[in-house]
Amino acid sequence: MLNQKRVLIDYVSPSVNCGEFYIKRVVNEIVNIDANVLADGHDVLGVSVLYKHENDKTWKETRMKLRHNDEWQASFKVEKQGFYTYKVEAWVDYALNWRYGLIRKINDGQHVVSELLEGAELIKPLIEKVNGEVKTYLEHLHRIFKSENDYGEAITEAAKDRLYKIFFDNPAKILANTSKDYQVYVDRKKARFSTWYEFFPRSASEHDGVHGTFNDCARLLPRVKSMGFDVVYFPPIHPIGEVNRKGKNNTTEAKHDDVGSCWGIGSQYGGHKDIHPQLGSLDDFKSLIQAAKDNNLEIAMDYALQAAPDHPWVKEHPKWFKWRPDGTVQYAENPPKKYQDILPIYWESEDHENLWKECLDILMYWIDCGIKIFRVDNPHTKPFYFWNWIISQVKAKHQDVIFLAEAFTAPKVMQQLAKQGYTQSYTYFTWRESKHDLIQYVEELTKTELREYMQPNFWPNTPDINPYHLQGANESKHILRYALAATLSSSIGIYGPVFEYMLSKPLLGKEEYLNSEKFQITHYDWSIKNKLTTLIAKINYIRNHNPALQQTNNIKFCDIHNDNLMAFYKWNDDRTNEIFVVISLDSHNSQQGVVQMPLYDLGVNPGDNIEMHDLITDSRYNWNNEWNFVELQPTMPFHIFKINK
Amino acid sequence: MLNQKRVLIDYVSPSVNCGEFYIKRVVNEIVNIDANVLADGHDVLGVSVLYKHENDKTWKETRMKLRHNDEWQASFKVEKQGFYTYKVEAWVDYALNWRYGLIRKINDGQHVVSELLEGAELIKPLIEKVNGEVKTYLEHLHRIFKSENDYGEAITEAAKDRLYKIFFDNPAKILANTSKDYQVYVDRKKARFSTWYEFFPRSASEHDGVHGTFNDCARLLPRVKSMGFDVVYFPPIHPIGEVNRKGKNNTTEAKHDDVGSCWGIGSQYGGHKDIHPQLGSLDDFKSLIQAAKDNNLEIAMDYALQAAPDHPWVKEHPKWFKWRPDGTVQYAENPPKKYQDILPIYWESEDHENLWKECLDILMYWIDCGIKIFRVDNPHTKPFYFWNWIISQVKAKHQDVIFLAEAFTAPKVMQQLAKQGYTQSYTYFTWRESKHDLIQYVEELTKTELREYMQPNFWPNTPDINPYHLQGANESKHILRYALAATLSSSIGIYGPVFEYMLSKPLLGKEEYLNSEKFQITHYDWSIKNKLTTLIAKINYIRNHNPALQQTNNIKFCDIHNDNLMAFYKWNDDRTNEIFVVISLDSHNSQQGVVQMPLYDLGVNPGDNIEMHDLITDSRYNWNNEWNFVELQPTMPFHIFKINK
Repeated sequence: MLNQKRVLIDYVSPSVNCGEFYIKRVVNEIVNIDANVLADGHDVLGVSVLYKHENDKTWKETRMKLRHNDEWQASFKVEKQGFYTYKVEAWVDYALNWRYGLIRKINDGQHVVSELLEGAELIKPLIEKVNGEVKTYLEHLHRIFKSENDYGEAITEAAKDRLYKIFFDNPAKILANTSKDYQVYVDRKKARFSTWYEFFPRSASEHDGVHGTFNDCARLLPRVKSMGFDVVYFPPIHPIGEVNRKGKNNTTEAKHDDVGSCWGIGSQYGGHKDIHPQLGSLDDFKSLIQAAKDNNLEIAMDYALQAAPDHPWVKEHPKWFKWRPDGTVQYAENPPKKYQDILPIYWESEDHENLWKECLDILMYWIDCGIKIFRVDNPHTKPFYFWNWIISQVKAKHQDVIFLAEAFTAPKVMQQLAKQGYTQSYTYFTWRESKHDLIQYVEELTKTELREYMQPNFWPNTPDINPYHLQGANESKHILRYALAATLSSSIGIYGPVFEYMLSKPLLGKEEYLNSEKFQITHYDWSIKNKLTTLIAKINYIRNHNPALQQTNNIKFCDIHNDNLMAFYKWNDDRTNEIFVVISLDSHNSQQGVVQMPLYDLGVNPGDNIEMHDLITDSRYNWNNEWNFVELQPTMPFHIFKINK
Repeated sequence: MLNQKRVLIDYVSPSVNCGEFYIKRVVNEIVNIDANVLADGHDVLGVSVLYKHENDKTWKETRMKLRHNDEWQASFKVEKQGFYTYKVEAWVDYALNWRYGLIRKINDGQHVVSELLEGAELIKPLIEKVNGEVKTYLEHLHRIFKSENDYGEAITEAAKDRLYKIFFDNPAKILANTSKDYQVYVDRKKARFSTWYEFFPRSASEHDGVHGTFNDCARLLPRVKSMGFDVVYFPPIHPIGEVNRKGKNNTTEAKHDDVGSCWGIGSQYGGHKDIHPQLGSLDDFKSLIQAAKDNNLEIAMDYALQAAPDHPWVKEHPKWFKWRPDGTVQYAENPPKKYQDILPIYWESEDHENLWKECLDILMYWIDCGIKIFRVDNPHTKPFYFWNWIISQVKAKHQDVIFLAEAFTAPKVMQQLAKQGYTQSYTYFTWRESKHDLIQYVEELTKTELREYMQPNFWPNTPDINPYHLQGANESKHILRYALAATLSSSIGIYGPVFEYMLSKPLLGKEEYLNSEKFQITHYDWSIKNKLTTLIAKINYIRNHNPALQQTNNIKFCDIHNDNLMAFYKWNDDRTNEIFVVISLDSHNSQQGVVQMPLYDLGVNPGDNIEMHDLITDSRYNWNNEWNFVELQPTMPFHIFKINK
């Protein structure tokens, strides 16, 4: 079959690996489509984006516009969760092409009788397609184009915009070409905009020395809500292994009263579908989920696919683990180190089908209990295709479910997990401290292909990471780290109350916490309020009321002549909300600088007045110039300005 | 089906549109393959490139090496013309992984009896695969690994490189993954390295006022050869239309003795398979082709798919043209302009199958006559898919055939023609004059995806383009333009003798030649020799003897602190030939500058001596520093140095 088509479509974007992976959006976001569309010669082309939700029967169409250099552009809004398919369709528009030449010939004074006959032929099939007034009009045109007596009227009508519009709206699409199909997965808004608070349920008790319970957690929900968080994430709540249990500070021999690591899952009390008895019952947990909902909070569960040596699977499904020639089971190791409290899953198992199904069943079980967010522990030590499968299986039934990948590992591995389906990803933000490193990293996340499929979640700290720069750091440093995370990224989280209470004592020389809650219970006075809890609440309030901070990609770093000061402009898709942030990276000294406003992006001219409304202090400044003086003190090391024009 | 594979291959390069189009190489070139290869966890991976010529039955394999950050690399050489397929294969290497952990444990002083048993299991299947000494050795290892009595010997042997090498050379490739297939088309060397000389046969006569013939052309071949060219390209040699023939200087009414444009093809004397009677007979043409071969020259023919109104096709195949409602045939136009001597082909014709076949038949006819190179006129006004089809049809039978696309049009259109199969492409070099513009353009051609599929051909002038900067330009300007083309690009061409005789009189205000040979015969004294003919011959000799100049992509521009001086380093794939070029863009004044040598690329240290051998003057300079002084005069505005270390 010879392909007689003349139009060619190339480099449709956004796309990931030429469409091998889907891009990601959330409900009511815009998808901006670009494509190169070419034909031989110089004919007028028509180009459309066709798009369709997975439940729709018919394609919607929006026309693309030629920008320059054969590059065409259009946008559409995704309004429902689930998959949309989009593609580009293009054709030579013979009718518009005819009109383009005709007008030039008329203006040149040429006699166009033959051209009008051609026009009549182009109009003829259209008459069947349209109705009412337009039909009558086209019938009239058809008649006068064929009659030499009406030549004057004919060339007048041919040149009118009305005919252009009829042709444009009713393309014949002869020999149209189509790109391949591309997909966008649309999540609920929380996939992009979420504010996480992590704490250990077993540390939730009011009483020192007492194991916390789900009921204790419920008591803490108003505190979390009042700070403006919307996701409460708990480390694993399942029975903790008793065999080879870890002691305090990750020692290998546990004392009899040590509680162990909650990531060492499984014991005589059950496995991944069970609850650690000291936390309460399944009903208690369901009540907690409901209490969270009542506070507009969601509980995120930890999904950690590994087993303690006494996990029920070890006896029930021995094939899911690796057995050594000496008859012992393979525990986790990173030679020469050994982790004898943990058995890794044997993914090469011949019984992998049942294994995968059980892993899926665990998720479905907790989803049925009301959980819609999973923070996945170390996903980079389980096969990529497994994640692709399990995430797509879950999403096919439960579009609301969100997966956060806890993969602090090599960049391409983290990116691949996002490609394979993870909704959100932990990032290197935790270790990015200098202005140069922060800007470079955020540019990589927001200005490369990553922006289409990897949704970052910025954490100043986690139970696993007590970053050097926070160890013994002052209040100002904690404030600026939170402000950075909360304004650079639309999804963020902290591990509390360690963060807001600035409890940053390390295991000497390591980026770990001393007396880490990973291995023991800590008693807190949860009622304490301080400057950090106040500012976190304020910042989160600002995030909740400014759409520009509810997405990550629309960011532009602005010049400010001071390496300790960062400035950036953020906006929502339709620029009805514009935010300007200035943050000092110096927690000890005041810093001054002159910052450049992105006047072109703001659509204002030098000399025009802009009101800069500081959303923390409620101060208002009038800026009239492109370059403006700012000064920040360690006591309040940032400005979040709303720009009022 | 659940996909249990653990290794994942991403971003295989080189590739064009993720493998939709093939990349291009010539015989004996190297293909450097990069790929991201990832697995979950931290296991040792094995990665290979598999490749195979279209006539080969089995795949060849070359192992990739991990560079950094999950990026792997390997190379293979393409030794035959035609298509090669390549792909990446990757697997977890359980044997090497076992050995990696074992050695760490031994070094840590751990007792590894159980690990040795695992090793015996890994060795067992290998014993069946190998022979001779290796088999005996493995049998021995298998025995001692299982016997606790030989523990000392076992751990000594396990740590030896010998076992590493046996494992590495005999991977089990369990659950191996493979990338998709990619293709490279391998041409003969002339596809990349060619030096074209264009002239009009009808101007080849020794006698003023006499129409040149093929026999006159044959007389000129030694002249072309002596200047070092290897391709002689003739504008169309077919019968020239007599209806609406163009007059001198593109006037619409020809006088009775006007010869017309040779691109207005077809008359009572025949069409695209016929020869214009005044040039000679088919036998004369075949003799000329043979005479060219005897001079190590190849004749390139013009392939121009359009017809004069009296082309035989118009009567024989009226459906191949567009007929207007008034019964007239559609001539070429760009409203309001009309080109009544040319009828465009009607590509939307319902009889397009016969049309395409006849177009192919024309090529096959001339290929049978001995033509292997076609310069295609205005390919961008014929459908892209037509070119894809016709080029692949020709190449399937005649791998030696080379197609040069004469598309001076929008960049994406030119690129698309190359993607669809064109061997070489005319470029914007003709108009790139400043240092900034030249560097930017060459970087685009050689450092982006274009390097993989678009092989540029640099022309200082053509019959259609008398660039403003050459109009009335002096000798120095002509020299430097030739030197630029000939050193920046491995394929180049000039339209002579207009170029070397500096006959640059324009049609006033236009980039066209006055009294253009496109519309009339010009009489030349072809025996004249001048500085340009001498230098062109010298430069071409240097190109023929330095592989670094026989490719375009290996180029690095070097700092030189003068906007009128350009410096660049070129090398062949194995760096056995290294060339350093300095060119002045100022044809009126001497220019001085200090140029930076690419010491790191050259593998020399500051202070080491490098001999710079000027291949034009045979001067030799010893450079000991990174920065070196150069001065160029308009009389000899360039250096081509061979670097001797």
